[in-house]
Amino acid sequence: MLDSLRALLGSDRVLTSQEDLIPYSFDGTAALKQMPGAVVFPLSGKEVSECVKLARANEVPVVTRGSGTGLSGGSVPLAGCLVICLVKMDRIIELDQQNLTMRAQCGVITKEIDDAAAAVGLFYPPDPGSMKISTIGGNVAENSGGLRGLKYGVTRDYVMGMEVVLPDGELVFLGNKCVKDVAGYSMKDLFIGSEGTLGIITEVLIKLLPRPQSRKTMLALYDSMEAAAETISAIIAARIIPCTLEFLDRMTVRCVEDFAKIGLPTDVEALVLMETDGHPAVVEDEAAKMIDLARQHGAREVKVAKDEAEGVRLASARRSAFSALARMKPTTILEDVTVPRSELARMVAFINAVAAKHSLLIGTFGHMGDGNLHPTFLTNEKDHEEMHRVEAALEEIVAETIRLDGTITGEHGVGLAKKMFLRRQMGEGSYALMQSVKRALDPMSLLNPGKIFDL
Amino acid sequence: MLDSLRALLGSDRVLTSQEDLIPYSFDGTAALKQMPGAVVFPLSGKEVSECVKLARANEVPVVTRGSGTGLSGGSVPLAGCLVICLVKMDRIIELDQQNLTMRAQCGVITKEIDDAAAAVGLFYPPDPGSMKISTIGGNVAENSGGLRGLKYGVTRDYVMGMEVVLPDGELVFLGNKCVKDVAGYSMKDLFIGSEGTLGIITEVLIKLLPRPQSRKTMLALYDSMEAAAETISAIIAARIIPCTLEFLDRMTVRCVEDFAKIGLPTDVEALVLMETDGHPAVVEDEAAKMIDLARQHGAREVKVAKDEAEGVRLASARRSAFSALARMKPTTILEDVTVPRSELARMVAFINAVAAKHSLLIGTFGHMGDGNLHPTFLTNEKDHEEMHRVEAALEEIVAETIRLDGTITGEHGVGLAKKMFLRRQMGEGSYALMQSVKRALDPMSLLNPGKIFDL
Repeated sequence: MLDSLRALLGSDRVLTSQEDLIPYSFDGTAALKQMPGAVVFPLSGKEVSECVKLARANEVPVVTRGSGTGLSGGSVPLAGCLVICLVKMDRIIELDQQNLTMRAQCGVITKEIDDAAAAVGLFYPPDPGSMKISTIGGNVAENSGGLRGLKYGVTRDYVMGMEVVLPDGELVFLGNKCVKDVAGYSMKDLFIGSEGTLGIITEVLIKLLPRPQSRKTMLALYDSMEAAAETISAIIAARIIPCTLEFLDRMTVRCVEDFAKIGLPTDVEALVLMETDGHPAVVEDEAAKMIDLARQHGAREVKVAKDEAEGVRLASARRSAFSALARMKPTTILEDVTVPRSELARMVAFINAVAAKHSLLIGTFGHMGDGNLHPTFLTNEKDHEEMHRVEAALEEIVAETIRLDGTITGEHGVGLAKKMFLRRQMGEGSYALMQSVKRALDPMSLLNPGKIFDL
Repeated sequence: MLDSLRALLGSDRVLTSQEDLIPYSFDGTAALKQMPGAVVFPLSGKEVSECVKLARANEVPVVTRGSGTGLSGGSVPLAGCLVICLVKMDRIIELDQQNLTMRAQCGVITKEIDDAAAAVGLFYPPDPGSMKISTIGGNVAENSGGLRGLKYGVTRDYVMGMEVVLPDGELVFLGNKCVKDVAGYSMKDLFIGSEGTLGIITEVLIKLLPRPQSRKTMLALYDSMEAAAETISAIIAARIIPCTLEFLDRMTVRCVEDFAKIGLPTDVEALVLMETDGHPAVVEDEAAKMIDLARQHGAREVKVAKDEAEGVRLASARRSAFSALARMKPTTILEDVTVPRSELARMVAFINAVAAKHSLLIGTFGHMGDGNLHPTFLTNEKDHEEMHRVEAALEEIVAETIRLDGTITGEHGVGLAKKMFLRRQMGEGSYALMQSVKRALDPMSLLNPGKIFDL
């Protein structure tokens, strides 16, 4: 197979030496690593299709990756597999201003998508934390979220179409530029979030919005997480859907201040980042109401950015949360449980109790408006005793999440990291349904086998 | 099987006499009719599940229906089949103001969903033309559109979860109240728009938005469709996404005026209904810009509603389009082709040329901002010679739609009426993919067999 791959792509786009393969043996997920047999770099859907056909003929499993920023092990190789790395498919194909769409190869960096849109006054809202390095194809495969999900939704809400290589190597295009289309099953929706297990997304057709004219950023500081959560409830009850309602807990605030020196008081129990965007009159109006509501519900202080630059600085408190936590200990395990918005404060309290019970360091931050929490375990994967406690804590957090009718993953995916919990969340019927789809579309289990679930 | 159904539901919820069955032998689609073997009225997902198990054991195909307003024959029975009619499952189960969700049985009328939301200042945006009589379950099964799709999207965009009875009778719940959820494949998205061929949706969990505070309605009158289309392009180019941009062509305007006496000039070539909603300042601003743009691009006149009541009156020009056309001739065939927004004026001109060529009466109206047209054939199904010309014209319209990378159905579904065109639009690969999903989920082809496609 390697000779055929070299004949197809040229030898400089086929890596096989151990040292060349090492960077492709892991992704952004802690403690998961496996050496692939080879890594190839196709330039087109056609080339991806040919690679898949070769792998299929040789019964070699295929694992797809973009930048490898995934946090659930979705692009960690199987031993000896073929890794198809799509980062060289990095061309924006078309920006259609009349139809407000962009067509791009899968390897385009997400931020470049939004930058290209911004250049003509348009907007690609999904902004995963990794957006400066992750690829749009990876975002679609994982259905990535971000900080603007409350108002703008997630990646799925912007995918109008895609070119996909199916497990038999066939290249199909699903979807089109029509705002409405109900012709047949929405197959594209099945591939969005399928984590590379059903097909390889090689091109995407995405929807763009007009860029909001203005934005206002605020930081509210609280002496209790409950007060912060009450503010969120009050904002929603006031029928305001801001673009961003994010929070950091006490430990995360301390780490962020230590790391980024933003000037945050380190004795607060909760920090809430609030942003409203849109028409200037709406922004003024909503910001004023949100500031009032924060004060009414016990905010110790509300900092209001005077301009865009200060807004970016305040938002950096949230944007740097993961990096700030990650430097504290050798191993950082970033969790992603999500509950209905109304259960968020209860869930944060539960996580704190679990951390105390198991003597663990857990900093929690996340998307308060979405109920999407990122409890972040600061640990050391070489300390086996502590890792056992991490596992026990994680199990309790997952159980509580499911009890509250939440989900084990809001935006990071199942991959390898969460697959042991999926059946419990979905229930037998839904789980079997999902497996039947995999069996129907990929009967040889060629694409990313063993991810999300076992068959 | 009938005895078992009577034992399960009581004999008053099992119809079998010919005269009782007649009202269930057709839906809103012209010229399609077939007598079922029985019609049952379950009250719960559990009862639906039992009905499906009985049908399965007896190998009797099942066709599901709500109010029967479908326009593609999706709920027309198969001869002798079991019709499961869900209109008695009409209970709103929960309105959760903290999480902005509503849970309802499938048989709740769509307008009642929005009315219940409106009572607490919330909003269910999808507004199919049939919303006063169609059911929410039918809307989800068809992924119904409406007049607000441009800004607010379609039914799919509001479905967070659903209870579904699978072809083996198993009852599962897919989805939850989480704003973000990427745990496993999005199976709910597969059922949305699957037209009753994969499962029976018995409950829905939908997302609500804050109700817009204000709205402004305008009607612009044009001497050419091209000028109307240029206005739409100019509005989008000005980065305005209004909630509604609808149009009527000359013939439709005449029929509407004759029917509803709104005071429209009957010599216009195009009427465009424009609505903007949201924050009062935004509405004022956008309305002023849209009026300017309409005048700049050749509108003969722009009527601006002074208040909500006048807005409703102006909007009734569009809302009554289908009824106004339908009274002209014995048979009305309502088409639903959709093209990228930028191709709409070209498509309207093409339809007019086809009408002239085949000496047919076609009134066209629809969703200009979405590129979703409803060319409406005014004909007589008993005139076989004319029906041949209708078929020829339809074939040409579909061919042009596909050539422009459009879709054969924007919001009415494939059902029986469009199945002969679907393969051509999707291409072999995508079509086979869709078929493989049906085979995997419904191997006996029990649910709505022969709809959308043949296996």
